[in-house]
Amino acid sequence: MRGRLSVVGIGPGDETLLTPMARRTLEEATAVVGYRGYLEMVSPLLGGKNALPFELGQEVERAWRALDLASQGERVALLSSGDPGIYGMASPALEAWLALPAPQRPPLEVVPGVPALAACAALLGAPLGHDFAVVSLSDLLTPWEVIVRRLEAAAAADFVLVIYNPRSRGRPWQLGEARRIVLRHRSPDTPVGLVRRAYRQGQAALIATLGTLDEAAVDMETTIIVGSSRTLARDGVMLTPRGYRQEGKG
Amino acid sequence: MRGRLSVVGIGPGDETLLTPMARRTLEEATAVVGYRGYLEMVSPLLGGKNALPFELGQEVERAWRALDLASQGERVALLSSGDPGIYGMASPALEAWLALPAPQRPPLEVVPGVPALAACAALLGAPLGHDFAVVSLSDLLTPWEVIVRRLEAAAAADFVLVIYNPRSRGRPWQLGEARRIVLRHRSPDTPVGLVRRAYRQGQAALIATLGTLDEAAVDMETTIIVGSSRTLARDGVMLTPRGYRQEGKG
Repeated sequence: MRGRLSVVGIGPGDETLLTPMARRTLEEATAVVGYRGYLEMVSPLLGGKNALPFELGQEVERAWRALDLASQGERVALLSSGDPGIYGMASPALEAWLALPAPQRPPLEVVPGVPALAACAALLGAPLGHDFAVVSLSDLLTPWEVIVRRLEAAAAADFVLVIYNPRSRGRPWQLGEARRIVLRHRSPDTPVGLVRRAYRQGQAALIATLGTLDEAAVDMETTIIVGSSRTLARDGVMLTPRGYRQEGKG
Repeated sequence: MRGRLSVVGIGPGDETLLTPMARRTLEEATAVVGYRGYLEMVSPLLGGKNALPFELGQEVERAWRALDLASQGERVALLSSGDPGIYGMASPALEAWLALPAPQRPPLEVVPGVPALAACAALLGAPLGHDFAVVSLSDLLTPWEVIVRRLEAAAAADFVLVIYNPRSRGRPWQLGEARRIVLRHRSPDTPVGLVRRAYRQGQAALIATLGTLDEAAVDMETTIIVGSSRTLARDGVMLTPRGYRQEGKG
């Protein structure tokens, strides 16, 4: 019997945002590979399965382990939080899969999920109502110059900016640099949404501005959405209008 | 009794990608407002409800109708395909909501969904494995110069580029212009993924290149993902590696 590998997006974490497709894939899996914290999120679905928890930062190891198990005939679910295509496990899994000789590759599928950017936006209102750019501030695998160039370009072209991995104990200064870059193109009054642990225990959503943003309160579980020149914050919501032209009430 | 307005992301269309949160919101709704085609997608859930189908392009009308019904005490679900925050109904709904005097506003929530960009990426492999920018080519509400500036910036800074609303009968030329802009910064060999009707009947996914892309085959139900300089296409999958640095096998 031939196995298969499903890279599964489990969404933000709450079971009410786990799609039926992801749930079914988990139920049918014989082996589940993922970061320890993600395995805990779906633990009610893992009874009797071969569960292989990994630590953070072992994405390549996870991908190869999942692939090995699938090659041995297991139906493997490789977990990603949010959507696996967005800074998730789809990319390392496919890199490993392509490195195998074609006859040795098990079938591979990606099961999409509700990404962090959509979950965070929903809690803030409608900050992504128009064009946006998504940038990770992690320079572990990307030279900082590449990240700077993208922040510059996105800020100059008035994109709403979604920032993943804004700050951690090991990377405390990148967020301040990013803010200085954006401030060269946008007013200090620009609304900034900060969402921590969207749809998880301890959820917190806050709307600040580029000028007042408290960097020290940001950690690796925070996603940041920086408004464009047209984004407004009012009465607790953050909104980017969908159009530049004036619209009448219908 | 006071009503409420829920802006609900129903995902790409298939019931297996409708989140339990969206399903429950639809089940609890007394009135459902949305584009005719979206109402059909969730028709099994609409029995006995006040269903108000609208035509395409009446987003502002839909938002006000939904808001009026919620103000009258109905529990209203306002439908968006994909995620309501990404070119969906969250923005027009919140604009209308903010235009009401505060005491007249019904409670409003946004229920996130699986966006088209995540669904399309899953069918192509892992094209969004690194930073990306999202641009709509519709110039109905946005001046074409703003769109051009964003395409230029995203192409120059080597973002993967997700293109919504690439082409319709009324807007046949924007895609060709966008392609010319990107080609000033990227090789004609750059992989381009085209996905039509992701997770719906008639689904089609195709990987072409910037040079070979057949514009005439693109319509308003297509989402396009243009690779960065690091994106590769091989053996039927499109992959953007998650890092710029070399990684070893774990």
